[in-house]
Amino acid sequence: MKKILIFLLFFQSVNSQHDILINKIFDISLTESKAYDWLDYLSNQIGGRLSGSLEAQRAIEWSKSELEQLGFDKVWLQPVLVPRWVRGPKEFALIETDPGITFNVPITALGGSVATPSVGLKANVIEVFDLKDLEKFGKKNIDGKIVFFNRPMDPKYISAFTAYGTAVDQRALGAMEASKYGAIGVIVRSMTLRSDDYPHTGGLTYGALPISKRIPAAAISTNGADKLSSLLKIKPDLKFLFRQQCKQLKDVKSYNVIAEIKGSKFPDEIILVGAHLDSWDNGDGSHDDGAGVVHSMDILNIFSKINYKPKRTLRVVLYINEENGGRGAEKYKEISDQQNLNHIFAIESDAGGFRPLGFSFTTNNRNFIKLLDWKKYFAPYFINVFIKGGSGADIANLKSDNNVLAGLRPNSQRYFDYHHTEIDNFNAINKRELELGSGAIASLVYLFDHFGIR
Amino acid sequence: MKKILIFLLFFQSVNSQHDILINKIFDISLTESKAYDWLDYLSNQIGGRLSGSLEAQRAIEWSKSELEQLGFDKVWLQPVLVPRWVRGPKEFALIETDPGITFNVPITALGGSVATPSVGLKANVIEVFDLKDLEKFGKKNIDGKIVFFNRPMDPKYISAFTAYGTAVDQRALGAMEASKYGAIGVIVRSMTLRSDDYPHTGGLTYGALPISKRIPAAAISTNGADKLSSLLKIKPDLKFLFRQQCKQLKDVKSYNVIAEIKGSKFPDEIILVGAHLDSWDNGDGSHDDGAGVVHSMDILNIFSKINYKPKRTLRVVLYINEENGGRGAEKYKEISDQQNLNHIFAIESDAGGFRPLGFSFTTNNRNFIKLLDWKKYFAPYFINVFIKGGSGADIANLKSDNNVLAGLRPNSQRYFDYHHTEIDNFNAINKRELELGSGAIASLVYLFDHFGIR
Repeated sequence: MKKILIFLLFFQSVNSQHDILINKIFDISLTESKAYDWLDYLSNQIGGRLSGSLEAQRAIEWSKSELEQLGFDKVWLQPVLVPRWVRGPKEFALIETDPGITFNVPITALGGSVATPSVGLKANVIEVFDLKDLEKFGKKNIDGKIVFFNRPMDPKYISAFTAYGTAVDQRALGAMEASKYGAIGVIVRSMTLRSDDYPHTGGLTYGALPISKRIPAAAISTNGADKLSSLLKIKPDLKFLFRQQCKQLKDVKSYNVIAEIKGSKFPDEIILVGAHLDSWDNGDGSHDDGAGVVHSMDILNIFSKINYKPKRTLRVVLYINEENGGRGAEKYKEISDQQNLNHIFAIESDAGGFRPLGFSFTTNNRNFIKLLDWKKYFAPYFINVFIKGGSGADIANLKSDNNVLAGLRPNSQRYFDYHHTEIDNFNAINKRELELGSGAIASLVYLFDHFGIR
Repeated sequence: MKKILIFLLFFQSVNSQHDILINKIFDISLTESKAYDWLDYLSNQIGGRLSGSLEAQRAIEWSKSELEQLGFDKVWLQPVLVPRWVRGPKEFALIETDPGITFNVPITALGGSVATPSVGLKANVIEVFDLKDLEKFGKKNIDGKIVFFNRPMDPKYISAFTAYGTAVDQRALGAMEASKYGAIGVIVRSMTLRSDDYPHTGGLTYGALPISKRIPAAAISTNGADKLSSLLKIKPDLKFLFRQQCKQLKDVKSYNVIAEIKGSKFPDEIILVGAHLDSWDNGDGSHDDGAGVVHSMDILNIFSKINYKPKRTLRVVLYINEENGGRGAEKYKEISDQQNLNHIFAIESDAGGFRPLGFSFTTNNRNFIKLLDWKKYFAPYFINVFIKGGSGADIANLKSDNNVLAGLRPNSQRYFDYHHTEIDNFNAINKRELELGSGAIASLVYLFDHFGIR
């Protein structure tokens, strides 16, 4: 790094106070971050924490207690009602090519799905690649069948999140749409770029469908999807059987966890650092979004260790219910509006604990052009991506005409190897990559705290 | 990606032929690269391939055969004598705090080390943190002991390679230097930033030490090193026993593998893409440097699929013996000089198969400033690091006053989790990250082929 700094000086000519302070932030991040140990606890001692679960409640109490030890002025719980969906016993599926000739394939119920009958659901299968195919095939070909959505994520996109965007409509809307054509169940190819045996869960919506029209939906692993597709080519009348016992229970009371330290100079200007505390239930949510939780918690740890006191009010918000409802974000926004709070900057970390490449920003062009001038502070850390784009699902509703919302953008290539599966766990975390995320966020927060929004 | 391209247009105003061609290169890399399948074969069917081994010979024959199927004008083997060091049976070590009270710790012989006596070597231990400590402690404290070098890599450096540079002198020179003070053996903390149980091998040199003064040296895992260090604090007179049966055999004949396609317009200007085919013997060398091998082999696969014919002569060179001798690189340079070859550009991939962040360049300032103008072509792929720095161990000797040498710079954070261990294997490879490396190299080669060195 020293070599690189010297080289940069050649272009920059001065090593400003900001370069020096940001260098301190990264040094501390790589030596005294608490992120890795916190995540070890959250992942391995608490585990998967779907909204409304006991694990979610434990995560709320644990994170509050940890935040209270960091020197915030106050830490509190913001009550919010959340949906409670439970998976039930492990799902089960098989392909039956002929009576008695079967192949097991790995599936997982989609979050929010209804159950199959308790003996399972067995039917013929129609393979489609697009929601539009439903109209093309029509009710006469779909009625009474299981619709198998099998469009892969497009590998040509550089950001795996963009590739996810090319396929996820099948998971989110497939059951609702297929039901309208008489389908009795839905199987969706897992949202990943890999060929493997892990089914990926994730939320669906039935929209305004009456309860009687809601059909069960599950994700199948990519290897399982390829197998099913190839068998359908030679045995179009094969049957698929799956069984899942998930259900939607009554809403329960839960909480956003909020920690705040008042700004010494501009207490009415709020800088928010946030992530979501809930996760899916199959893995332990280390990347989604344990990493973001510990990134957020780390900021005051880092600031304290470099003896930096924020001039603006700094808030850490650990949102509940990002995965299957967004109720935490809604509640936070509602209360903020009641209190007429002014969030000048908010950053969310919800793209995994991988090596940070940069940030995406939601703001006006004037602010964005000013922000580009800060790229130079991040170059020594090989953090060079400053793009316009989304910030994050939980903070997006804080947008105003003049504020800045940002999302940490780590390397996305491996994210969907783990996303919403049993292997999104602590083994998939690299300590230094996680810590560089803490450093990147703390550095950007420092710059906003120092300069404000002009 | 499309979104990003649109955004970049805002700044660039045209989408040049180069943008379009490089976009094609990345599309092909992410859909029709052969890198992952090749690496699967090299890693899982051939495995670790230390110079002079049967596995190295198999890798030579296999890569020649694969290259011959890609449409090069010729593929040939360049003979070179290489050292042959063999590890022998698995090494063994323990800490004896009191007679009969022992703890096993994982070690691995350093490459090139001599053996211990066949019953093992047992002695008191002196812990040091720097080669300079040897002089400080002096012969009276070191004579007859095992010197334990225990300085960790400095985690504050952003590039893990730079951090490696802060500690690797202990591994390379520790045995030679400690011998001068009467040490009878050397144990070195493994070169990694992680706390784990994998010992990391790697080369040492005895310099001009006579054979009788060469003492055995092994690396100990970082957890083992921490254990030894903590026990030494309470039991300074503990004993350490280790046993290794490695030996240096006679040099054997081996080969660099070279493939060439003549340039259609400037056949005398050579562009070289290279990596090293040999690896250490404990893992299968997937990252070091199987990834570089398949990156290099991929270039003509990619160019063929986009129907691009190089104007300059393109050479792929798979060097032998990077790990413990560098004889392949020496031989290639010697023959190139005899033939008065003009390498205008050479790029080496020997930093792992991780997500590419950019390139480092060895060239004059005039060329480097021109190169910075090409950063724009890589921005859509989040490849933004263009720095001056080393290229690679095998191509460094091709430097001339006006040419350009480059090294691919992937994300380095995980590299030393695997480097020179049994877990540097195919499981540690992510397909897309590997493929993006192929795309990055092919794109840079395309630009040099198109523009040359002006």
